[in-house]
Amino acid sequence: MTQSIEVEVCIIGGGVSGLKAAHTLLNHSGSKYSSKDLILLEAQDRLGGRIFTDRKSSKLGISYDLGASWFHDSLNNVVLEESIKDGTFNVMEDGYYDDKDIRVFASDEDGPLDVNNMKLHRVAEDLEKFIELYYFDDLNKADMSLNEIVELFMEKHSSRLTTEQKRYCSTILRYLELWYGITWDKISAKYSIMDHQGRNLFNKKGYDFLINKLASGIPEDRILHSHPVTNIIRNNKKGNERVAVESSNGPTVYCNYLVVTVPQSILSLSPSHTHGITWIPPLPSNITDALENIHFGALGKVIFEFESCWWDINEDRFEILADSTDDSSLSSPISSSPESFKFPVFAVNCAAVYKESVRGASLCILTQSPLTDYLESHPQQAWSYFKPMLSKLKLNDLQVSDPINTITSNWTNNPYIRGSYSAVETGDDPLDIITQLSGEHDCGLIDKNIRFAGEHTTSDGSGCVHGAYMSGQREAMWILNDCGAFSTQ
Amino acid sequence: MTQSIEVEVCIIGGGVSGLKAAHTLLNHSGSKYSSKDLILLEAQDRLGGRIFTDRKSSKLGISYDLGASWFHDSLNNVVLEESIKDGTFNVMEDGYYDDKDIRVFASDEDGPLDVNNMKLHRVAEDLEKFIELYYFDDLNKADMSLNEIVELFMEKHSSRLTTEQKRYCSTILRYLELWYGITWDKISAKYSIMDHQGRNLFNKKGYDFLINKLASGIPEDRILHSHPVTNIIRNNKKGNERVAVESSNGPTVYCNYLVVTVPQSILSLSPSHTHGITWIPPLPSNITDALENIHFGALGKVIFEFESCWWDINEDRFEILADSTDDSSLSSPISSSPESFKFPVFAVNCAAVYKESVRGASLCILTQSPLTDYLESHPQQAWSYFKPMLSKLKLNDLQVSDPINTITSNWTNNPYIRGSYSAVETGDDPLDIITQLSGEHDCGLIDKNIRFAGEHTTSDGSGCVHGAYMSGQREAMWILNDCGAFSTQ
Repeated sequence: MTQSIEVEVCIIGGGVSGLKAAHTLLNHSGSKYSSKDLILLEAQDRLGGRIFTDRKSSKLGISYDLGASWFHDSLNNVVLEESIKDGTFNVMEDGYYDDKDIRVFASDEDGPLDVNNMKLHRVAEDLEKFIELYYFDDLNKADMSLNEIVELFMEKHSSRLTTEQKRYCSTILRYLELWYGITWDKISAKYSIMDHQGRNLFNKKGYDFLINKLASGIPEDRILHSHPVTNIIRNNKKGNERVAVESSNGPTVYCNYLVVTVPQSILSLSPSHTHGITWIPPLPSNITDALENIHFGALGKVIFEFESCWWDINEDRFEILADSTDDSSLSSPISSSPESFKFPVFAVNCAAVYKESVRGASLCILTQSPLTDYLESHPQQAWSYFKPMLSKLKLNDLQVSDPINTITSNWTNNPYIRGSYSAVETGDDPLDIITQLSGEHDCGLIDKNIRFAGEHTTSDGSGCVHGAYMSGQREAMWILNDCGAFSTQ
Repeated sequence: MTQSIEVEVCIIGGGVSGLKAAHTLLNHSGSKYSSKDLILLEAQDRLGGRIFTDRKSSKLGISYDLGASWFHDSLNNVVLEESIKDGTFNVMEDGYYDDKDIRVFASDEDGPLDVNNMKLHRVAEDLEKFIELYYFDDLNKADMSLNEIVELFMEKHSSRLTTEQKRYCSTILRYLELWYGITWDKISAKYSIMDHQGRNLFNKKGYDFLINKLASGIPEDRILHSHPVTNIIRNNKKGNERVAVESSNGPTVYCNYLVVTVPQSILSLSPSHTHGITWIPPLPSNITDALENIHFGALGKVIFEFESCWWDINEDRFEILADSTDDSSLSSPISSSPESFKFPVFAVNCAAVYKESVRGASLCILTQSPLTDYLESHPQQAWSYFKPMLSKLKLNDLQVSDPINTITSNWTNNPYIRGSYSAVETGDDPLDIITQLSGEHDCGLIDKNIRFAGEHTTSDGSGCVHGAYMSGQREAMWILNDCGAFSTQ
């Protein structure tokens, strides 16, 4: 291996955004770049970043996405649109809209709650609308936690609610913990309510189809695996190119353009941290300050596979409500298996999703921090923790059986991921970091040839695959324009 | 009766907006006006305008609101808030959130459709989001009818839909006809999707509680019933006041301030029309043009009372889907009883709403123009028209019985109402008339002492009781400020 490489463009990170950037640079019509002009450095021994399709662990022959697994905003999702168009994704065969009314359970009821008769869904909708209206008039109103604003709603409107609505709706919005990967005492009320642009489409095919598709447009030798970047020398004085990128075990890459797609969790690390990146000169305070105003969630997955289903195979999703508890320690790190019903459970019924498969007797449970951190480190405790809650799902004549297989994600222990994706805690300003890194405004770095991409650099599709994808494309197009790639056309 | 009256303020119209204006002028703290300063002219022999609580027709002892009957936007509805506060309305006793999942039927199925399993509600949500997104990027995009944009969605997304979804969802959004009172070939796609601010709360108490409450703050002799206004002389040269208002059978009212709250349907009439108002000088073209860019719907009600219920008393609402048909004649006037399943049916189940009543065996059906016009003129045909559709609601062991009583609204035949409320047809500009009449912008009339109020003069609560209410308050406050009523404080 050579000690140094000189390229036009270096991309750090082989997740969706980095791969899309590389793919665009090499394949966009009118691009003057060929493969020799580009190198992609990936810290891990695999591509995909926070997309990981586990095709090996299942005993039922199912491929599980342990990271991203839905097309969100499916009416306005460029990844979905393009994949339908190029024939790599067929909605009816490869996808599943897992959006039947969610089946809701509570600790004090044996069967599912009669959500419709109790009109719990309507009160939940009102709760979300209440939050939206609360901040609509004045975005400068002080932020509070999701927990606190739900209490405010209950105070203000309890005279309009039935006893059952009061009992169950006080925690019903905790399902949002399984969107953001943090607990509701941390979730920013101001930024808690999302505007969805269409249904969520579960990707049964496995999201690695996208990684493979993008990677197939990039020659293998232009991707260096297991090359975690250690130093970025912004004002390079040694090579002919403007930036130098050093990785722990590879050549120094000299490049004219750099696209940094490492997760926000890596960007936020102190340079002195083992996995931190040293910037020379350091990142300016406008960026480091913005990084302090946003947090990183830990959405995890625990998948239990069984001999056969003992729950209703016709339901898409299950939610098991948490009990109302003292929430003061909810987000504190967990040191031993927590009490049941302290955290809400959200489970995807793989029996419904993969119904045409020979056996789909599995449940895929989403977890939030700090539970994710604990269970990813203690996967052998997962079943004993979830069993009392999941037993609520048992159908009359059937017996709850122990799983034949347990698969857990490992995002919190992965030093190059460190959780899941950006999450807005109470008091955070999620737009600042986007403003600083998206390159769409006159801020960020003064060296404009250093670009940023990833789910945390965009408000359109923030936290989502299609957001990361578009951000990679955005930076590739910026470079193509800046370097005059289109000038020969 | 005197031949002329001189007052500070004349209000035309004794509906919610006119009454609220009068009530505010007389009762607002700091107002210098007393009852002698004000007169309210009402064309009909009753107050309430498009609120009418029928307390006489029922054989079951129910009071039916034949006009407005819900508190819409219940999280942000000033009428509801104030009525809770002053003790005139108790949500749990006087109201009913009739928002259980709607039970949907179709001509080709005997029982209710399994909306949840077919995920019809999710596709309907996507349809609404599709419409929103279509115009979000560019409000200057050409308008089309609701019917046309649903076809566009079906073209674009049919590969993502199941056979059942395609069959039923092609007409599922026609429920909006029962919001706007016009058929979907007329409904403006651009303005079809509403943003609700909270659940809809059915008013069981009867909306006349509000009319009575407002009227009780106005001395009886300041309200002249059966005084339809014929002429408004803007530049009055006879009396001491700035405006003269003439009615067909009463005194000429000379006033310094005039608040016109007649429905948009009356404002739109030619002065030569029997029930038109002659403005001297005429209304300027900015107002008459704006009036041509908005239409007036005809939301009607047909209530059938029965000996007993033969439908599910636990469901709040029923929707019976229309068949897909050639829609070219859908909005044309009807001259004989139309075919079944040509128009969708939306019915409120009074058995659920008034469940604590001794007998609530009635169904309240909303109708849209042109069906409203036809049935209001031929109420005796209502049952034979609806029976084939309503029979879908029959529970297994029960027999469909003929009604013991039929009550219909009569808005289209009421010369002082002429329909229901403002409706946005394809190509209309609903904001122009609001801009011209709301007094919030520097347009409308040059004589600023002539004010307009009513549901058609506001975008906040447009078409709703609380919108009319706020518009009346708005104009009263404007006058109080303008005349210096607060200056002595």
